[in-house]
Amino acid sequence: MKKEEHYIKAFGEVMMRLEVPNYLKLAQAQELRILYSGTGVNILSALSRFGHRTSFITKLPENTLGDAAKSYIRSLGIETSDIAIGGNYLGMYFLEQGFHVRNTTVTYSNRKESSFCTSKITDYNVEQILKDTSMLHLCGIMLSISKQMRYNALYFAKKAKQLGITVAFDFNYRPKLWNGDYTEAQKCYEQVLPYVDICFMTDRDALYILNMESIEKNRQRRIEQLIPEIAKKYDITIIAGSLREEADQQISGFIYQDDSICFSRKYDYRAMDRIGSGDAFSSGIIHGVINESARDAIVEFATSACVLAHTTYGDSPICSEEEILFLVNQKDVQIER
Amino acid sequence: MKKEEHYIKAFGEVMMRLEVPNYLKLAQAQELRILYSGTGVNILSALSRFGHRTSFITKLPENTLGDAAKSYIRSLGIETSDIAIGGNYLGMYFLEQGFHVRNTTVTYSNRKESSFCTSKITDYNVEQILKDTSMLHLCGIMLSISKQMRYNALYFAKKAKQLGITVAFDFNYRPKLWNGDYTEAQKCYEQVLPYVDICFMTDRDALYILNMESIEKNRQRRIEQLIPEIAKKYDITIIAGSLREEADQQISGFIYQDDSICFSRKYDYRAMDRIGSGDAFSSGIIHGVINESARDAIVEFATSACVLAHTTYGDSPICSEEEILFLVNQKDVQIER
Amino acid sequence: MKKEEHYIKAFGEVMMRLEVPNYLKLAQAQELRILYSGTGVNILSALSRFGHRTSFITKLPENTLGDAAKSYIRSLGIETSDIAIGGNYLGMYFLEQGFHVRNTTVTYSNRKESSFCTSKITDYNVEQILKDTSMLHLCGIMLSISKQMRYNALYFAKKAKQLGITVAFDFNYRPKLWNGDYTEAQKCYEQVLPYVDICFMTDRDALYILNMESIEKNRQRRIEQLIPEIAKKYDITIIAGSLREEADQQISGFIYQDDSICFSRKYDYRAMDRIGSGDAFSSGIIHGVINESARDAIVEFATSACVLAHTTYGDSPICSEEEILFLVNQKDVQIER
Amino acid sequence: MKKEEHYIKAFGEVMMRLEVPNYLKLAQAQELRILYSGTGVNILSALSRFGHRTSFITKLPENTLGDAAKSYIRSLGIETSDIAIGGNYLGMYFLEQGFHVRNTTVTYSNRKESSFCTSKITDYNVEQILKDTSMLHLCGIMLSISKQMRYNALYFAKKAKQLGITVAFDFNYRPKLWNGDYTEAQKCYEQVLPYVDICFMTDRDALYILNMESIEKNRQRRIEQLIPEIAKKYDITIIAGSLREEADQQISGFIYQDDSICFSRKYDYRAMDRIGSGDAFSSGIIHGVINESARDAIVEFATSACVLAHTTYGDSPICSEEEILFLVNQKDVQIER
Amino acid sequence: MKKEEHYIKAFGEVMMRLEVPNYLKLAQAQELRILYSGTGVNILSALSRFGHRTSFITKLPENTLGDAAKSYIRSLGIETSDIAIGGNYLGMYFLEQGFHVRNTTVTYSNRKESSFCTSKITDYNVEQILKDTSMLHLCGIMLSISKQMRYNALYFAKKAKQLGITVAFDFNYRPKLWNGDYTEAQKCYEQVLPYVDICFMTDRDALYILNMESIEKNRQRRIEQLIPEIAKKYDITIIAGSLREEADQQISGFIYQDDSICFSRKYDYRAMDRIGSGDAFSSGIIHGVINESARDAIVEFATSACVLAHTTYGDSPICSEEEILFLVNQKDVQIER
Amino acid sequence: MKKEEHYIKAFGEVMMRLEVPNYLKLAQAQELRILYSGTGVNILSALSRFGHRTSFITKLPENTLGDAAKSYIRSLGIETSDIAIGGNYLGMYFLEQGFHVRNTTVTYSNRKESSFCTSKITDYNVEQILKDTSMLHLCGIMLSISKQMRYNALYFAKKAKQLGITVAFDFNYRPKLWNGDYTEAQKCYEQVLPYVDICFMTDRDALYILNMESIEKNRQRRIEQLIPEIAKKYDITIIAGSLREEADQQISGFIYQDDSICFSRKYDYRAMDRIGSGDAFSSGIIHGVINESARDAIVEFATSACVLAHTTYGDSPICSEEEILFLVNQKDVQIER
Repeated sequence: MKKEEHYIKAFGEVMMRLEVPNYLKLAQAQELRILYSGTGVNILSALSRFGHRTSFITKLPENTLGDAAKSYIRSLGIETSDIAIGGNYLGMYFLEQGFHVRNTTVTYSNRKESSFCTSKITDYNVEQILKDTSMLHLCGIMLSISKQMRYNALYFAKKAKQLGITVAFDFNYRPKLWNGDYTEAQKCYEQVLPYVDICFMTDRDALYILNMESIEKNRQRRIEQLIPEIAKKYDITIIAGSLREEADQQISGFIYQDDSICFSRKYDYRAMDRIGSGDAFSSGIIHGVINESARDAIVEFATSACVLAHTTYGDSPICSEEEILFLVNQKDVQIER
Repeated sequence: MKKEEHYIKAFGEVMMRLEVPNYLKLAQAQELRILYSGTGVNILSALSRFGHRTSFITKLPENTLGDAAKSYIRSLGIETSDIAIGGNYLGMYFLEQGFHVRNTTVTYSNRKESSFCTSKITDYNVEQILKDTSMLHLCGIMLSISKQMRYNALYFAKKAKQLGITVAFDFNYRPKLWNGDYTEAQKCYEQVLPYVDICFMTDRDALYILNMESIEKNRQRRIEQLIPEIAKKYDITIIAGSLREEADQQISGFIYQDDSICFSRKYDYRAMDRIGSGDAFSSGIIHGVINESARDAIVEFATSACVLAHTTYGDSPICSEEEILFLVNQKDVQIER
Repeated sequence: MKKEEHYIKAFGEVMMRLEVPNYLKLAQAQELRILYSGTGVNILSALSRFGHRTSFITKLPENTLGDAAKSYIRSLGIETSDIAIGGNYLGMYFLEQGFHVRNTTVTYSNRKESSFCTSKITDYNVEQILKDTSMLHLCGIMLSISKQMRYNALYFAKKAKQLGITVAFDFNYRPKLWNGDYTEAQKCYEQVLPYVDICFMTDRDALYILNMESIEKNRQRRIEQLIPEIAKKYDITIIAGSLREEADQQISGFIYQDDSICFSRKYDYRAMDRIGSGDAFSSGIIHGVINESARDAIVEFATSACVLAHTTYGDSPICSEEEILFLVNQKDVQIER
Repeated sequence: MKKEEHYIKAFGEVMMRLEVPNYLKLAQAQELRILYSGTGVNILSALSRFGHRTSFITKLPENTLGDAAKSYIRSLGIETSDIAIGGNYLGMYFLEQGFHVRNTTVTYSNRKESSFCTSKITDYNVEQILKDTSMLHLCGIMLSISKQMRYNALYFAKKAKQLGITVAFDFNYRPKLWNGDYTEAQKCYEQVLPYVDICFMTDRDALYILNMESIEKNRQRRIEQLIPEIAKKYDITIIAGSLREEADQQISGFIYQDDSICFSRKYDYRAMDRIGSGDAFSSGIIHGVINESARDAIVEFATSACVLAHTTYGDSPICSEEEILFLVNQKDVQIER
Repeated sequence: MKKEEHYIKAFGEVMMRLEVPNYLKLAQAQELRILYSGTGVNILSALSRFGHRTSFITKLPENTLGDAAKSYIRSLGIETSDIAIGGNYLGMYFLEQGFHVRNTTVTYSNRKESSFCTSKITDYNVEQILKDTSMLHLCGIMLSISKQMRYNALYFAKKAKQLGITVAFDFNYRPKLWNGDYTEAQKCYEQVLPYVDICFMTDRDALYILNMESIEKNRQRRIEQLIPEIAKKYDITIIAGSLREEADQQISGFIYQDDSICFSRKYDYRAMDRIGSGDAFSSGIIHGVINESARDAIVEFATSACVLAHTTYGDSPICSEEEILFLVNQKDVQIER
Repeated sequence: MKKEEHYIKAFGEVMMRLEVPNYLKLAQAQELRILYSGTGVNILSALSRFGHRTSFITKLPENTLGDAAKSYIRSLGIETSDIAIGGNYLGMYFLEQGFHVRNTTVTYSNRKESSFCTSKITDYNVEQILKDTSMLHLCGIMLSISKQMRYNALYFAKKAKQLGITVAFDFNYRPKLWNGDYTEAQKCYEQVLPYVDICFMTDRDALYILNMESIEKNRQRRIEQLIPEIAKKYDITIIAGSLREEADQQISGFIYQDDSICFSRKYDYRAMDRIGSGDAFSSGIIHGVINESARDAIVEFATSACVLAHTTYGDSPICSEEEILFLVNQKDVQIER
């Protein structure tokens, strides 16, 4: 298998996830389940499972928390030799899983004081890191943290572009982090987009962040209208995204490539652990693009990867290519013996 | 916030709940999950979460079990200084959670030999306890235990009435505890009702315990017929209750106040832990009445509290006012980040 | 109760089941839940719960794994004095429970090297073992393991028949174990069938293993056509089986006895742990036959036992006769207090 | 092996042990570890492990607790067909394990209200039960519970004696249960002793319960003085007991047989779980006596069994004869590979 | 009991302790055990257990972490109505328990960004809080955090002194927090000492922080020399402290009162959980002082409390007065039945 | 840091360790703790923690067990790209941890049927694997498995020697695996030794396997006599080993290098988990040799690494260089804050 020729890196944050088990509230719990996650880690986890070589670029504190995060990342098959060491804290979030009408809650700790969020571009040997890289992934959350983080992200994007590295970018817009300030957000996102080759976003990002307009209420038609415009405006090769219909517990995906848009089937989903399912979709798109699969095969694979990511524990997708293709091909067997 | 002016107390039993985890049968288990509960504790737990001052009146043994029960009650925000100490045992029940068509089973231990069930009225410094109380809650289960317990409950009810304290009473009828003897039960309940200001019951209690008659098959209409009669007969200010439709997994509530009945919307529910959901309803009613909310707002809040109590672990409701109002206002967001 | 007059034995393998908890993948787990199971153990477990005397015939290694398996079997109420000791290994399977569209996976270890699978007929004191036996249960999986195992199974079947012992046989066909070689399988199964009195199978076994033909697409009608033929051809008194409709999550059962076939109602099922539910059905049939119940009562009881086995943890059915009859009688109560 | 010719039964109580894990106090715990134990169960557990046929005689409630206790007892290799069913409760004790200077605490629940403690002699089919029994074990705790229990114990002792069954009796004196009333205790114990063949006791029982006198301070010499006297007075064949020196964490045992006393070596012990270690000693004596081993071999084996019982979890001894003989022979290997 | 007349408050931080279980390293763990602790909480926990009324003064964030901390504090019997709400974070520390020669490691998170460490004096209604207080406890760690925290601590100390409230102060010196800057530390400590009535410290604090001198190598004699000097210089009524001899695993305590020093016996200790044992000592001193016990009884009780705190899980002492007196009186019983 | 220039590989087996938790016996357990280990994995784990680049050479089945083993190995910082895929089974061992006089027991499953033990040399691309390798580690256990395994080990050793790669070899003699056949073992070991540069062994291996003679009883003097002889005979550069004195719970190490032997101090050890401590010693030697440290520093570091490996969970050493040097330098601090 020649997949390993590709070497995919992601620049981003890894956080400790501290989850209250058994749908308890934190005040009821004596134990927490921990793992380590982040958009970049999640995407690389899946790509590593698909057979690609991957490495994560971040900054971690030199203490037991940094050690533990590294060990976890490696267990996912991701290399850790590009990780800078220093700073004080690992970012964290506490997770209370919801149940039926009770919502899931996420409480951040050290949101902006983490080693990564206080890192400077000089903490990373960018040239060295990007030397043998074929694709670089960046996540929009970084744009909201601080001016320094925006600078870092932009620096990586530009440098990668210069070196002919494919740049993948995930909008990942979180209104809370911007205090709902769309004007500021738009400016930041527009600075990055010219360097992007593969972009993960939906019509909502187009409307709210990029301030585009559409009278279309139907999301599919809205996507068919807005996404090609964006692709042209910023010269983006591929734009993809997933659409969730919560009421029906259904999900579908789309991909724009070569001037046309392709939608996947609609899939039922049931969420054992919903965080990271969007990252599974992105990793499916990237895998398909690398493999130069057909557009409809790519989006079907990515959406199946997304559906399966709902059925596994943790943020980082761990299903194999075989399991995903099995769902693409729609079989339904319960016990394999 | 001036809520703390109210000081709500409940007289009742606290039992240790010993739950077989993971839907196992007891014979399959090496571990049990424990907590402490009871109608009074559950209601005060919710009221404390809503910001009210609360205290629980009971009798506990002077041993590690009594200590543990006290510690748990305090963690819920309930004061324990009115608790009498002595006797031999803490009441207990073993819980095997059902799954789909397999029923939940409850096995009592020490049902009638507990410190509380063998307590005498002189164990409680009733005058002192009721001095600064604004509302007293009592539960009908006490009427079934023994003559002494009936006497104790009645004594507390009378004394509270004399002192101008609002008396809340929950029918909580359990046929098993009376060996199905409705005549005996009716007599006991009728002794208490004249002292009651707020009563929790349904049409079924009216039919079976109070021996009333109705040809109406529709439960809502039956409630509209019977509840006002009861309110008038026993001079009860407020009567409220919840109606569960198991087949459809739906629940709704009603409140009778100022000569008219108001029903809530129907809510879907899914039960992670069903015990205590009725107590959440009652606490919602009490909270609304204290706040002098409008009738329809009260019953909507109480029913939402009841629905949410199905989604949390344990008998004692722990959702906040904000979470309940969120459901009242019908939003449906899954991950708050 | 005179049930204990019957003494039911099963000859078969007991395996250690190593289950990854909480729907994790093995690579995510630090802990496994273990138990011991096998078709024979499962059936005897249920029959013991129904009040019958039972004993399991197998071979176990003389080490901590053998000891543990024995202890577990005894806890189910099954006698272990017929178990031979020796050999090297206990058979094992690792179980990753699926979730929604993610399939359950089973990975065997020591499939053919276990003490049982390498045992010789001389390891068992067959005469002595069968002396006081009223029914012997055998499972078709043994036919696939090796020539030696086929010989052992056939030897037990013949000997039992000679001694007038009722022989129950479960097809339990697993294509994987035969590498899909129906010709070889058919030959083996046909050697056993002449000794069988009670047979567990479905139309699919008739078509694929016994190579029968039917143009009928409707499974019920196909069963009505094929099963009586088989009964006649091999002189089998009773044939029974269960039909699962996965898409609808429904299950029903049938029994052929005295020249006619009787089907049960269709039951909804929800699977907490699906393995062993077929064995629950078989045990229900055997119990009914021993009790000389009416045909329709037998199949309704067996199907209810099967449905309930989906709702309990572990492979070995543990519901009581009362619980099963409760479902037969269709009541639906959630909390018994 | 002809050991199975012996059929040893014990009449006594089985209690649920609810242990707070990890040396926590109950008020700190959300989980309890459960098992089922009692002097009789413990002794039969060990004897079953040594290869003897055993059966436990008690009364259990007809509910999930009774079922679970039975299943546990069977897992230890003890037959449960002599167990009567009925009554309300299973006896229980809560265990907080001590640590260093912090003492272990035991809190009983349902001490005298259990199915066993409220059972009548007519609940047991004594003739039938004792028919094929070769040895009967009784425990002195029963004498303290109630007149009825004393009557039951005495009845079993007499009946066994009449039938030529060896009667083993354990003093197991608990001052708390008698409120320190030695006079009353002495009377009760003296009623039983004439029927006893094998007696487990120490010099302390002689002094406090049997009200004997000795000016000897050295325990070994005191035993050499008092035990033969008792053997003669009550015509007891064998008297044995273990001596614990807490300060030194050492233990030794003695046996009186054929007019002479034999002491074991002193063994270091470290207690992982100390409850039941005395029962391990008794089982070792019984096993040796049945095997007609030499006096010094018997007491060495019994003391080694006792020492090993400190190193295993739970009240019921589970070490094998081989493991015990290994300690008798003093080897010290850490990892067997 | 008149103890409740005393109302003891502590001003300080509560942190979440996230403990890696089973002596694992964080990188090996999937679960953490959590609790909430701090010097003030620990001392009030013990005093509440001894029967005193207590309240904790701090600032907590308005989120699930703040809720959980409050619930935990209440479970210890400490009132939470003096707690201010606001800010962003709860302080945290990760704990890897050491084993033998492997050291325990503590990793802080949010050390200075917590709601408490960023709180202003105006966040606390100081007058109102101190109104009914009889004793106020403060901890020296606060002096190291920031100028604001020093100001807050000093403000509380002065105000309490003005109101005639007994001020207890714990040196609790942590070189790491001051980056070893003794000059700065000395200045800060000396500002507080004039307001202190009861002071917890040792000779080491005298040497390193207060920059005193002694040629005495023997610690007892050094204490006898230095402590009276300090008491006089700063007009402190009581000074107490504990001395740990790690090599011997022994501990002893001293108290200076009424111009003379009294030492306790030396006690062996074994540490199940060592954190918080110093706070147990302090709470024992405070309890004895409130009860006006004799000097030697006070220090013996405090040292026993300290020894027992090593034997229980968690930072907050939970042993009862009876348990501590039992150790004072030196008995050694293992199982109380 | 230039350490990464070294690239250390090990050829060997990785087994699943299934450990009964809490010192239970397997028959008492419902859960097992799992991890993956082997001499090679353990040594590379430590070397990776010290900063070296490492890769493990083995063969794993293509199933969930193989995936899980890989993921675990990667989490330790070891590369997995040299691992061959195929075969049926992962080797396993069940571990019952001993307690005091109760021995630890190890029960193997799939000892010789594993993917690794049935692998052929052609499964490994030996040339490619050894291309960039600076050191290769082999373990003597392989010699006992089968002729094929001996051939594989020898082939790797020869090939490495040819390529100028340093060959490290661990005697790791297990009499059980050879059925005590020293003659056969000697032949096999002597075939390998000529290719070895660094050898881990003790005087016992010299006596029993290499059939050397010594009248010396003192182990240190015996080592001083025999080890240089071996070094000369087989032209081995470095020979090292550790000596355990179980009775005293002390351990020391030795290294032979440049014609002279150097012994470490004696260290106390306490075993939380003893398996893998010998591998920690070996990794310390290798690290020291690579760093070209002084002989006495190397052996002190290695012995400290060994002592610390007793204090951590799992077979694979995880202590850092700093932690080990801390012990070398003998400090003793309990809580670092």
